[in-house]
Amino acid sequence: MSITAPAGFTAAGVAAGLKSTGAKDMALVVNNGPRFDSATVFTSNRCKANPVLWSQEVVKDGIVRAVVLNSGGANCYTGAEGFQTTHAVAEKVAEKVGIGAIDVVVCSTGLIGLANPRENMIAGVEALAAALTSDGGDDAASAIMTTDTVSKQAVVEGAGWSIGGMAKGAGMLAPALATMLVVITTDAVIDAADLDQALRAATRVSFDRLDSDGCQSTNDTVTVLASGASGITPPLADFTAALTQLCTDLATQLLKDAEGSEHDIAITVVNAVTEDDAVEVARSVARSNLFKAAVFGNDPNWGRVLASVGTTQAEFDPADLDVAMNGVWVCKNSTPHADPATVDLTPRDVSVTIDLKSGDARATVWTNDLTHAYVHENSAYSS
Amino acid sequence: MSITAPAGFTAAGVAAGLKSTGAKDMALVVNNGPRFDSATVFTSNRCKANPVLWSQEVVKDGIVRAVVLNSGGANCYTGAEGFQTTHAVAEKVAEKVGIGAIDVVVCSTGLIGLANPRENMIAGVEALAAALTSDGGDDAASAIMTTDTVSKQAVVEGAGWSIGGMAKGAGMLAPALATMLVVITTDAVIDAADLDQALRAATRVSFDRLDSDGCQSTNDTVTVLASGASGITPPLADFTAALTQLCTDLATQLLKDAEGSEHDIAITVVNAVTEDDAVEVARSVARSNLFKAAVFGNDPNWGRVLASVGTTQAEFDPADLDVAMNGVWVCKNSTPHADPATVDLTPRDVSVTIDLKSGDARATVWTNDLTHAYVHENSAYSS
Repeated sequence: MSITAPAGFTAAGVAAGLKSTGAKDMALVVNNGPRFDSATVFTSNRCKANPVLWSQEVVKDGIVRAVVLNSGGANCYTGAEGFQTTHAVAEKVAEKVGIGAIDVVVCSTGLIGLANPRENMIAGVEALAAALTSDGGDDAASAIMTTDTVSKQAVVEGAGWSIGGMAKGAGMLAPALATMLVVITTDAVIDAADLDQALRAATRVSFDRLDSDGCQSTNDTVTVLASGASGITPPLADFTAALTQLCTDLATQLLKDAEGSEHDIAITVVNAVTEDDAVEVARSVARSNLFKAAVFGNDPNWGRVLASVGTTQAEFDPADLDVAMNGVWVCKNSTPHADPATVDLTPRDVSVTIDLKSGDARATVWTNDLTHAYVHENSAYSS
Repeated sequence: MSITAPAGFTAAGVAAGLKSTGAKDMALVVNNGPRFDSATVFTSNRCKANPVLWSQEVVKDGIVRAVVLNSGGANCYTGAEGFQTTHAVAEKVAEKVGIGAIDVVVCSTGLIGLANPRENMIAGVEALAAALTSDGGDDAASAIMTTDTVSKQAVVEGAGWSIGGMAKGAGMLAPALATMLVVITTDAVIDAADLDQALRAATRVSFDRLDSDGCQSTNDTVTVLASGASGITPPLADFTAALTQLCTDLATQLLKDAEGSEHDIAITVVNAVTEDDAVEVARSVARSNLFKAAVFGNDPNWGRVLASVGTTQAEFDPADLDVAMNGVWVCKNSTPHADPATVDLTPRDVSVTIDLKSGDARATVWTNDLTHAYVHENSAYSS
């Protein structure tokens, strides 16, 4: 009941026949006020899905009163017909909830190029509206799952206020402001501008640092709704810290459920000149198929780490790099150090530390290993 | 006998005990003149192996008289000791062949962080010098193989002159001027400056357009030696065309032998504003694990193509893109067109065409699919 934990929200999840399995595939989250402040970040992919094109207009005034989501089809590259479906769904939500369609964010996920059957979705909205309840968070969270094996939810408690969140995402996980569908609710009193500032700060160090497979989605949306129902206005720093905690929690849940993964890998770059340098270096390693396959094989192949580091423009001396895996410094001053055989990569959690010895900035990027199961799942997904 | 096809060259390949299998692992190519013009391109990876650091100095004066190569260890990130090994090998070649060490290019390939046993390599050079012959090209080509399943050789005949080449490479294949070890020989009379110009023109549209797994090696070297033994000075345009043909032939052989691959994928972007735009878009698709896994599953998933296109900065209208797979236009104007079920992806050769409708430039990037065998091979390589 994560997203319905904060006061002022109702939610529901139903099966509308979009998934061939008959599982829940539509969700609705409604902010009942008294305030309707919101902030949203979208994928930076230029090939944006129809619901993103619609929702970008919806969020411009900082007011969002409902979010309707579906799995079973991304409604991306489905043309004018697809956009009209998104619009029709928003209009139906507006009619049933008694609000304006221009305050309804629409999110879709699933196969690109697949049109969602409009009649099913309209009927789905009717069922959702009838099922709205103040403990509907679980149903909503399960309705947005695609290849996810578990639903992702989190709650962070403040002093008299709280934040709840749900997320979906298991593949096409690479950062671009947002890399999945996430709905966050809070009953704190916080205006849209502050909410936007807090959301961008939180996603920058959470979802933006997740790079499971280097592939950036066309539909990613993270939207936060603030009802103000607690009547409490927390200090912005407190709220931002709590929101960051919640986003990091959800990002970690996404990481642990990434398609076919057997290892969660935290790549930390230390002593970089800038945080951007640290992120660039960490991300280059996170995107090395050779490194990721080696981790799958429990092989502490630090050579593949340095080969990736060398492709970046960050400031460092190629002849003076240190690399640790699970705390063992297998490379010091760009030469072999501790015996790699002493590194135990069998646990699911793997850490890689790269010391650039050039400054005092640092950053961590999270990724997964490249496994047979990943290849299997993604070679068989749509056909 | 590819590299010994042009007049003026001798070569050899021997087993020096670097590979645990006992297979050939050292090669030597000697230019016997009368001219010793050369040109070389190296990996742009900033983490360069010791032989690259050495050879960068060797090639500066445009004179190279011998190339010594080894598989079984990349001699990368092995410190001062490793550099001294490279130097000692060059000195030994110089002594045995009767030339200066500063005219000896050294190339190594294999595991990063692994020191090559110096005594084995010195003994190997002695054996190589004793085995040098004017038909030693085959032996040399097989001695530089690592995970290659076949040796790669090619010859292009000019009017009274010829070009021969050998290459090794199966993994860590991504462009950075050069992405593998390649030695090219010619008996044409051509000075070092023209040779450099021709080599850069040829690699730009061949090896640089090969992106098998997005991973850039630390050891890549492409070196061309011109003996002038034919006595013929071809027009530079003719020589460049022949060299481009040879490089493309070798690049195609590398593509077909890429680790674990089941498909060779040519991604062609047409009607781009610039060739750089076309390359950027094609390369983004070539690096999408989701797209590559889909091709492995014979799934014409054009949505994953567009999702990658959208991550680039190239000029195009996201709402007006066409995509064809194996000649079938599955997407027109960014909406579904022909039924993807009519696309047959079972042949090894796959073509993807992306029409940006923005200009008249075009480019092709070659890649492979992402397969179980790739994951298997790269999770078990070093351990």
